[in-house]
Amino acid sequence: MGFFSKDIKTMDDLFVHTLQDIYYAEKRILKALPKMIDKATDSTLKQAFQAHLAETEGHVTRVEEVFRMHGAEAKTVTCPAIDGIIEEAEDIAGDIADKEVLDAALAAAAQAVEHYEMTRYGTLIAWAKRLGRGDCARVLERNLAEEKAADEKLTSIAEAKLNIRAAE
Amino acid sequence: MGFFSKDIKTMDDLFVHTLQDIYYAEKRILKALPKMIDKATDSTLKQAFQAHLAETEGHVTRVEEVFRMHGAEAKTVTCPAIDGIIEEAEDIAGDIADKEVLDAALAAAAQAVEHYEMTRYGTLIAWAKRLGRGDCARVLERNLAEEKAADEKLTSIAEAKLNIRAAE
Repeated sequence: MGFFSKDIKTMDDLFVHTLQDIYYAEKRILKALPKMIDKATDSTLKQAFQAHLAETEGHVTRVEEVFRMHGAEAKTVTCPAIDGIIEEAEDIAGDIADKEVLDAALAAAAQAVEHYEMTRYGTLIAWAKRLGRGDCARVLERNLAEEKAADEKLTSIAEAKLNIRAAE
Repeated sequence: MGFFSKDIKTMDDLFVHTLQDIYYAEKRILKALPKMIDKATDSTLKQAFQAHLAETEGHVTRVEEVFRMHGAEAKTVTCPAIDGIIEEAEDIAGDIADKEVLDAALAAAAQAVEHYEMTRYGTLIAWAKRLGRGDCARVLERNLAEEKAADEKLTSIAEAKLNIRAAE
């Protein structure tokens, strides 16, 4: 969560800080996804990444909406977790020559990204409710639902196709 | 996944590489958990971390067992993802003075760790099965089940106690 955590004194501060963390993460993912789309060779995987890129633009907008609703400035805080997860994804994307093996690795890398977002949104929703901000929780729940659906879609593409081809 | 990914040519290489990644992650978590136990003030949270430390020792042993079963050397490969996730956890642990807010943040940080492990084990299990290594998959499934249970336990502690106290 970076360098501003010394400013966290209350649960409200922690909520806003974690919102800044996921805001950074969503923007980071917006930059990473086009490279993953470019690397993916399987058409179903490519389409799933493209669909998730469009969803991610919506997630950024919804996080900005929650900042506004909560009366906080929409700003990011460096998130070493997503940086590390994406660094791994890019390492693997750059270094596997076999297309089928690469597709399987890309799907797995994207699922690591989804899982990071799922845990943060899950936490943010619980904290929003506890702070009496059910309105913010409902907006964040829409992002969480899309992350979970994206993860499940990747599991089904991987198991139905990518992993089979990669192992052949 | 680090610097060795250029050696990944087959699905089997990818499986072994990801096993090295989670082996690194589990060992990194073994070092991080005692600090989190030390920082936690709520007794239920402290106990949950202590129980998970004992489980994590078992996870390392099981990953070593899978290396042996698969005829691969048990070695680690640097995993920037877990490094980033733990860096965030340590940042937050060091910089929140209020004990109740800190406990809520620590539980959330630990859940980010669990989610990373869940996604990697989920992938490893799918790949092991695809490679005809149902025996390896069964060992890895035991780790996955414990990670999921640890995550659920943290959710219930956070919602039943930590978040309520932190928001007061």
